[in-house]
Amino acid sequence: MKDFNIMRDLLEDNKRLAEANHEILLSKGIFTINLLGSPGAGKTTLLEMLIRELKDEIGIAVIEGDLYTSNDADRIEKENIQVVQLNTKGVCHLEANMVKEALAELDLKDIDLLVIENVGNLVCTASFDLGEDIKITVLSVTEGTDKPIKYPLIFQKSKIVVVNKMDLLAHTDFSLDKFYQDIRTLGEDIKVFEVSCIGNQGIEEFASYLKKLIKENKLAGEKN
Amino acid sequence: MKDFNIMRDLLEDNKRLAEANHEILLSKGIFTINLLGSPGAGKTTLLEMLIRELKDEIGIAVIEGDLYTSNDADRIEKENIQVVQLNTKGVCHLEANMVKEALAELDLKDIDLLVIENVGNLVCTASFDLGEDIKITVLSVTEGTDKPIKYPLIFQKSKIVVVNKMDLLAHTDFSLDKFYQDIRTLGEDIKVFEVSCIGNQGIEEFASYLKKLIKENKLAGEKN
Repeated sequence: MKDFNIMRDLLEDNKRLAEANHEILLSKGIFTINLLGSPGAGKTTLLEMLIRELKDEIGIAVIEGDLYTSNDADRIEKENIQVVQLNTKGVCHLEANMVKEALAELDLKDIDLLVIENVGNLVCTASFDLGEDIKITVLSVTEGTDKPIKYPLIFQKSKIVVVNKMDLLAHTDFSLDKFYQDIRTLGEDIKVFEVSCIGNQGIEEFASYLKKLIKENKLAGEKN
Repeated sequence: MKDFNIMRDLLEDNKRLAEANHEILLSKGIFTINLLGSPGAGKTTLLEMLIRELKDEIGIAVIEGDLYTSNDADRIEKENIQVVQLNTKGVCHLEANMVKEALAELDLKDIDLLVIENVGNLVCTASFDLGEDIKITVLSVTEGTDKPIKYPLIFQKSKIVVVNKMDLLAHTDFSLDKFYQDIRTLGEDIKVFEVSCIGNQGIEEFASYLKKLIKENKLAGEKN
């Protein structure tokens, strides 16, 4: 049982640190998203689209998780918002202590939305909370209909699932019917957006839903 | 440094067990592939195609790694070959001790090729050898050209990289030129096959290359 205990300790330490991160973010009125998905699901492109849709009205900062490179952070930096790169140096997921370090590098004033883009991984990323308000998982139709059932935890923990690359739907055997059926067994209340970043489909609807969540977060913060 | 030491111990234990697995497989004249890739890269479909191409000439067995389900093993079972399901119960990669258990459930007589399909993951799966002769990584063009540079270890350790879903190439911004350029910086000798399982492109070439490796393995075994 040794390995099991090590893992449990790691997760408990992480939980404490995630709660501390959440306290800080809450006190600054920042709504925080943990953005998840497979490698190549289209997380960074979706994030670029979102930023363009929201940045005139909403203060946005991004923490970019990656194993070794700063490729994604370089892309986000072009949107002229604050970005911090976190290199996990081979670890397959972000942990709360890494995010704590990144928060120290951000100017949290005038930020309404913080997006933490996690490492591309459908497994361990689901187990390590970072201090976020919600998790969003991006699933591209090219990955196949079977993914929610094969990787249930990450979908169960997501408030929103974005079905991405809808422009490729006709070229795949992805079944939206089966997807909705499976996703409902994993969570009655999971909100789904069908999106294409190339076809600019569903982005506006997704962005305005997030705007609503960010506004509710602000109001809740002011009441406290 | 505590965490680092735990990881090092885990990897050292795993290496010992992987070597023991390899000894067993070698003594039976079995050529073993560790099949890797993102969730949805198309590993199982590629494996189905390969089995159909090879099974008349070559004895094949499969070990299917998955978090919780037996979906993939059920698919492979339809090809009328021996399959063992390994459920990692949430662990994001297979380890050598799991494969050791699976080997005990297989009848290794008359097997020339064992394929171990790993959990869909480009990170940790690269660090845990299972006792295989070679690693093969499947990358679908819909995942994006940047993946080899972002997840270098798994590509560096692969003898073969299969560029899959070539039928979708025209619908993506995947650049084969950039891919080959990057893959050459990661390994001069990495063999690449461009494949489409839907279009039946490149499968025969890939299968006959594997057949050559399996035959060489047999000959090397007989010499010992």
